[in-house]
Amino acid sequence: MDKQELIDRYRGYIDCLNRQDWSALGQFVDQNVQYNGQRIGLSGYQAMLENDFRTIPDLRFVIDLLVADPPHIAARLCFDCTPVGELFGLPVNGTRVRFSENVFYQFREGRVCNVHSVIDKAAVAAELLHSRPNDG
Amino acid sequence: MDKQELIDRYRGYIDCLNRQDWSALGQFVDQNVQYNGQRIGLSGYQAMLENDFRTIPDLRFVIDLLVADPPHIAARLCFDCTPVGELFGLPVNGTRVRFSENVFYQFREGRVCNVHSVIDKAAVAAELLHSRPNDG
Repeated sequence: MDKQELIDRYRGYIDCLNRQDWSALGQFVDQNVQYNGQRIGLSGYQAMLENDFRTIPDLRFVIDLLVADPPHIAARLCFDCTPVGELFGLPVNGTRVRFSENVFYQFREGRVCNVHSVIDKAAVAAELLHSRPNDG
Repeated sequence: MDKQELIDRYRGYIDCLNRQDWSALGQFVDQNVQYNGQRIGLSGYQAMLENDFRTIPDLRFVIDLLVADPPHIAARLCFDCTPVGELFGLPVNGTRVRFSENVFYQFREGRVCNVHSVIDKAAVAAELLHSRPNDG
């Protein structure tokens, strides 16, 4: 798979997430996918994403920066959303928060097989502090 | 600058950091470098790194994964170190901690001009919890 094919494939994956089209997820994600060092498999990956959309009903994956070098893709994803309840253990409760995720993907036969993600949770904490100046 | 030249350049930059060779930093970092959306410039960048080495005397930058697509490099850096005092606001005080940083660099004329980094601070908090079971 050359670079442009890999990029197209990745954009297809992101579209699949944003459509919450879980029946198509297996076209983009390997049955034995690992996430941050743990083999969670396709079903675990889907469960994680479904939980993300429950916590963040207006969740939308937006690619801010994409670096492709087959078989790897690195992406900076930006989120602008209003999670209900807690997010990353923080009491967000419907506050609008913006944060980013820097994430590496390895592909095998056109599917994501290994993911290393770091989410900027501190940015969420900072936004909460900023949005409630009287509580700080 | 083609892909291999960019990779060599980036490895040179990492070597420069590990040698703490601040007199050479300007060969690798642009005078007007931005870090996480702020224009800190070469002097601010150097001050940030010097502070990192003060906080973490045995700091060593190790590239775990490198994705290159000129003019961008994305790297997953791994750290295994024993910071003195506080790190990311956490009372590390000489405990050995391991954590990673997922970071994107944009190059201009062979120098880093824009950096977007997310450090896995939660991993440090988790390691501290793990290393002190009687305090948890």
